[in-house]
Amino acid sequence: MTIPHPNIPSHQRAAIRHGTGTTSTTTIETIPVHPPGPGQILLKITWTGLCGSDKSLLRDEWTDFGLTMTPKAQGIAGHEGVGTVVAIGPGMENRWKIGERAGVKWIASTCGECEFCLTGTDEVNCVNQVNSGFSAPGTFQEYCLADGRYASRIPDGVADEEAGPMMCGGVTVYVACKRSNVKAGQWIVLPGAGGGLGHLAIQFARAMGMRVIAIDTGEEKRELCQRLGAEVFIDFQQTPDVGAEIIKITKYGAHGIIVTAATKAVYAAAPRYLRPNGTLVAVGLPKDASILAGAPPILMALKKLNVVGSIVGSLKDVEEALDFTARGIVHPVLTKGKLEDLDSWVEKMANGQLAGRVVLQVAS
Amino acid sequence: MTIPHPNIPSHQRAAIRHGTGTTSTTTIETIPVHPPGPGQILLKITWTGLCGSDKSLLRDEWTDFGLTMTPKAQGIAGHEGVGTVVAIGPGMENRWKIGERAGVKWIASTCGECEFCLTGTDEVNCVNQVNSGFSAPGTFQEYCLADGRYASRIPDGVADEEAGPMMCGGVTVYVACKRSNVKAGQWIVLPGAGGGLGHLAIQFARAMGMRVIAIDTGEEKRELCQRLGAEVFIDFQQTPDVGAEIIKITKYGAHGIIVTAATKAVYAAAPRYLRPNGTLVAVGLPKDASILAGAPPILMALKKLNVVGSIVGSLKDVEEALDFTARGIVHPVLTKGKLEDLDSWVEKMANGQLAGRVVLQVAS
Amino acid sequence: MTIPHPNIPSHQRAAIRHGTGTTSTTTIETIPVHPPGPGQILLKITWTGLCGSDKSLLRDEWTDFGLTMTPKAQGIAGHEGVGTVVAIGPGMENRWKIGERAGVKWIASTCGECEFCLTGTDEVNCVNQVNSGFSAPGTFQEYCLADGRYASRIPDGVADEEAGPMMCGGVTVYVACKRSNVKAGQWIVLPGAGGGLGHLAIQFARAMGMRVIAIDTGEEKRELCQRLGAEVFIDFQQTPDVGAEIIKITKYGAHGIIVTAATKAVYAAAPRYLRPNGTLVAVGLPKDASILAGAPPILMALKKLNVVGSIVGSLKDVEEALDFTARGIVHPVLTKGKLEDLDSWVEKMANGQLAGRVVLQVAS
Amino acid sequence: MTIPHPNIPSHQRAAIRHGTGTTSTTTIETIPVHPPGPGQILLKITWTGLCGSDKSLLRDEWTDFGLTMTPKAQGIAGHEGVGTVVAIGPGMENRWKIGERAGVKWIASTCGECEFCLTGTDEVNCVNQVNSGFSAPGTFQEYCLADGRYASRIPDGVADEEAGPMMCGGVTVYVACKRSNVKAGQWIVLPGAGGGLGHLAIQFARAMGMRVIAIDTGEEKRELCQRLGAEVFIDFQQTPDVGAEIIKITKYGAHGIIVTAATKAVYAAAPRYLRPNGTLVAVGLPKDASILAGAPPILMALKKLNVVGSIVGSLKDVEEALDFTARGIVHPVLTKGKLEDLDSWVEKMANGQLAGRVVLQVAS
Repeated sequence: MTIPHPNIPSHQRAAIRHGTGTTSTTTIETIPVHPPGPGQILLKITWTGLCGSDKSLLRDEWTDFGLTMTPKAQGIAGHEGVGTVVAIGPGMENRWKIGERAGVKWIASTCGECEFCLTGTDEVNCVNQVNSGFSAPGTFQEYCLADGRYASRIPDGVADEEAGPMMCGGVTVYVACKRSNVKAGQWIVLPGAGGGLGHLAIQFARAMGMRVIAIDTGEEKRELCQRLGAEVFIDFQQTPDVGAEIIKITKYGAHGIIVTAATKAVYAAAPRYLRPNGTLVAVGLPKDASILAGAPPILMALKKLNVVGSIVGSLKDVEEALDFTARGIVHPVLTKGKLEDLDSWVEKMANGQLAGRVVLQVAS
Repeated sequence: MTIPHPNIPSHQRAAIRHGTGTTSTTTIETIPVHPPGPGQILLKITWTGLCGSDKSLLRDEWTDFGLTMTPKAQGIAGHEGVGTVVAIGPGMENRWKIGERAGVKWIASTCGECEFCLTGTDEVNCVNQVNSGFSAPGTFQEYCLADGRYASRIPDGVADEEAGPMMCGGVTVYVACKRSNVKAGQWIVLPGAGGGLGHLAIQFARAMGMRVIAIDTGEEKRELCQRLGAEVFIDFQQTPDVGAEIIKITKYGAHGIIVTAATKAVYAAAPRYLRPNGTLVAVGLPKDASILAGAPPILMALKKLNVVGSIVGSLKDVEEALDFTARGIVHPVLTKGKLEDLDSWVEKMANGQLAGRVVLQVAS
Repeated sequence: MTIPHPNIPSHQRAAIRHGTGTTSTTTIETIPVHPPGPGQILLKITWTGLCGSDKSLLRDEWTDFGLTMTPKAQGIAGHEGVGTVVAIGPGMENRWKIGERAGVKWIASTCGECEFCLTGTDEVNCVNQVNSGFSAPGTFQEYCLADGRYASRIPDGVADEEAGPMMCGGVTVYVACKRSNVKAGQWIVLPGAGGGLGHLAIQFARAMGMRVIAIDTGEEKRELCQRLGAEVFIDFQQTPDVGAEIIKITKYGAHGIIVTAATKAVYAAAPRYLRPNGTLVAVGLPKDASILAGAPPILMALKKLNVVGSIVGSLKDVEEALDFTARGIVHPVLTKGKLEDLDSWVEKMANGQLAGRVVLQVAS
Repeated sequence: MTIPHPNIPSHQRAAIRHGTGTTSTTTIETIPVHPPGPGQILLKITWTGLCGSDKSLLRDEWTDFGLTMTPKAQGIAGHEGVGTVVAIGPGMENRWKIGERAGVKWIASTCGECEFCLTGTDEVNCVNQVNSGFSAPGTFQEYCLADGRYASRIPDGVADEEAGPMMCGGVTVYVACKRSNVKAGQWIVLPGAGGGLGHLAIQFARAMGMRVIAIDTGEEKRELCQRLGAEVFIDFQQTPDVGAEIIKITKYGAHGIIVTAATKAVYAAAPRYLRPNGTLVAVGLPKDASILAGAPPILMALKKLNVVGSIVGSLKDVEEALDFTARGIVHPVLTKGKLEDLDSWVEKMANGQLAGRVVLQVAS
């Protein structure tokens, strides 16, 4: 039995995509609010993050890989939103209470039955997963349905507007740091360290005791990276040979590197920054690069390099990442806007004009 | 004080390289025998393996990577030889006895002091290592000097002629199997399974309880692979879509794949044979391929793939690999020849006319 | 909606416990059959294993640890049973079909929400778990309700009567082998190797490539252990110093030891069988021993020993263990009986008169 | 050829043990200075730490375990000393220079050949190791011979007096923290956190991002622990139920606990502070306790606990630990004295009157 809530309206505002490809646009429209079904909860979204993946999905940049918003998404993107529980579907009465805060993530739900769900945190590879803003309506609407088992509880100490970015970009770099296998006292290189993912990676790497070499450009980025804990900042526009500089600092090369940037050039150069047995974590998703253009097998083999892909994280990982924020250790740098201006924010993102993570106010 | 041995002659036969590049040749010449210096032992080589790397070094195929036989090698290649100790240099009197069998490997000596020597089995990345047949005279001579600390003891049960291949190709695939992280009961794919490395990989994989999908072509290879323990044989010339076949057998793809073949095509296809969280071990060294031409970052990230380079193994790894042979579990398939015919064997290798591992008789 | 089945009777036979402590007994009684509720399936049990834990629970041997059959078990023990699905509760229609075979295990269900459920295979520590024959009626009845999400599918190639032992004793030693961290080619010691758990441990250890030292006594056990793959058999009644014998065979001690026996003596001796960095896996549950009576901290520290507890396994582990049986690699040695004779089998077990695993026919 | 140094005197002062057992004493005597042999260097010791193990060895507390100072030690204990190189033996000319600083550790030398030397950092279990102040004269003398391969280089930023404690107590808890397998953001419990080992463990645990629960007593210890980074301090004399307090803070128990205290009581209680899958690291060496008096197998198994022994660390571990000090992250709290007063410091240690680590000035 659905636990109703007097404040649920019949209709809401949502940003609906129209068109396809780079010319697609969104318009704010009025659509019905759906009550939660079995196992679901309904959230009134207060803030949603705007992720680089939202831009890629809205603009059909990944269609080559079969990643196109499905009709089930109803044109509503967004996958890092937070809100308050306003209605509770059958079976979730003991798990959620009206008024609690909950978060919606890229992984909207998993089956809990496939081999990957049964293998620990491999649920991110669930073969039956549903994805917010991709195969289900996302967080670019005021009232979003969420799987009650897979929604994340937002702990005290985490603000509504920072929870979204932590559940997507935050957990992504948190897991990437773990997968890098870099230990406390060892060197990690973070290209694009001043960016939306990079600035969070600095903080998580530091929280794990790693020594951080941040690569980016400009005084503003330098100041940011150093304030967040980078031990070394390399301005790639001022440095003729970044690789040589890294070797000079680390003697044999860094122990790990997390490539968050979606550019071919970084993937091509990264393997040469690593010491033997070092690890490259592939996070950024350039459309057309082959990983390791700069790493022929002979380099991979002789140096025994490791290259590992990484994508978001499990429900448990998200919980852990949020805990770092609740404890005051990791915070996203936010640029705030409103859902009404979605298209202009997407445009700014496409032009590389954004600092930190963008969050949009949805319901007031 | 060097322990002398009455049977050490003043001169010996050796195969000396002349010329460079693909037209280089070797000639059997008479050269002096050198007594062992401090920390060294002198071996009378009975058999030496002929490795694909010997061909690549003799023919300057890796000069682009800075891998060219140095003057210190004195034109003598060969890095998987076994023989008997005929003289013992100062400091090695307690470690070796005249008449014992010892093996010479690609890694001739390590410094024991650098960061990689101090980090467990990372000695294969020793920054001061000397390499047989590359930066020191190798095993294509009757009397070969060896580092007394780094030479391998040959256990009972291992024949002279099979020890060489086990210390190079054998340990290479043994370590690759370990690095694949495939567990007993899980699937591993071995392209080129009937080849010099592949047929040893089948045996080690089976000894670890893995389920083996062997890929090669022809009835002879099929028979060999199945006899050595492959559960499935895929004849790539008879199979329109190898990847689809692997998925059909393994449901989600294999847990690991070891690429021993030095061809671009295999590296391009391999990532798609893997299940999420699967591991590709890069062993084969094509001259011009970038690893993972077939694995754009988006595939790497979404499937959380792992790509790890692997090369030979540590002194301890070699000891372990030899133990599998001593216990009768892993044996190389050998094609036997004589050192005098080195050039013709290299030519046959270049033409892909060899089965199993080639071993050449050196001293009689 | 429950999918009914015409063959479900209204009543069934079950073995119900009466009394407490060592004098408790069971009687076969007629009780109602319950239809499956939401998320449940109903199984007609064909065979159930009789586990040492059943004896301990029936006879209240673990009350000191708070492990006493609760009223919810309704006096019905048994936790390794297999049967056919005869009715399907709401929500399980897509997962199960009438006539499929399913298995009931010690862990009857987990919550899927607690920290341990969310951390990979740590579900065995689910804080809300229900246990068959302990906090829910077990498999000592003809018609047993099972959680549809947590029941195991029985693959082809596994007989009804062997599935039960594999899902309890089998998975227990399979996981213990994995937790021992012993690699292919290394030594594992199995005290009580000819017993109900030990004989399965030999097979799994061999399937992973370990070298097995089996400890037990008598010619029958020797023959069994060697037939199942033990490389060495030590008859502890014929061997004055078992530890010295192990050192002689392994040079520095074994790499691992799995203590399946529930006796203080074995726990006291085991640490001394290990080489530095070796691992003792604690599986057997003596009532009153402190682990490592024979391992003062100074031995633990100087040899850097590892002692790890292990208990059953996850749903995924069970699936893997059953797969080894389906592939013909691991089979339990069975002693067959009937549920009607439960008390006499428990008595024989208490007297150490049983060989292999006991399975009891339940419904015909 | 030994590189001489004009400032090496023919004789020196040393603290020589006389008598045995608890009544043994040391006297300052004049003994010869020995020039370095092949592979050795001679150090002029400036400061030496006084370790709890020195006390145990001097007072024969470990004879039950066969740990008695051998005649080779010549009555000179001490195993955490630092000094300057004043003479260099044959073969070490390229590795060391006169005037460089070097450190002497518990492990004076390893063979580099045994199975454990060849297995990564398992050199601490070298079967041929020589131990300072135990099987070789230690650092309680002005001029100490050291193995040139195994002496540690002291990096800039580490003072002479703090290098000794870091190379023994420091590396011990550094390795223990690594072996605890506790991750950044997880809880570690440190009983005796204000002690000689404990206060270093707090700092290393914090440097790895762990959350620290320090257990000790008194305001002074509370202030110290909190200043060094403990998040929670439990005064065990003011806390009726320490275990309950830990559960309250951590919900399911801590992820790890490092027992540095050499008392039975702590070992008996520790397992109950752990959550499922948690790890107890056994470092402290009580003479007569059996580990886990409080952990019967049933607790070990049901909670899948891990108990691992740990002792000092490898040459590489020492280098890493010193690096944390050089970077200003970990510093020992020192109590300073002079070698002349050795006996009184040992007595104070026996009476538990010491704070932090004791270092004694040796040569001026």
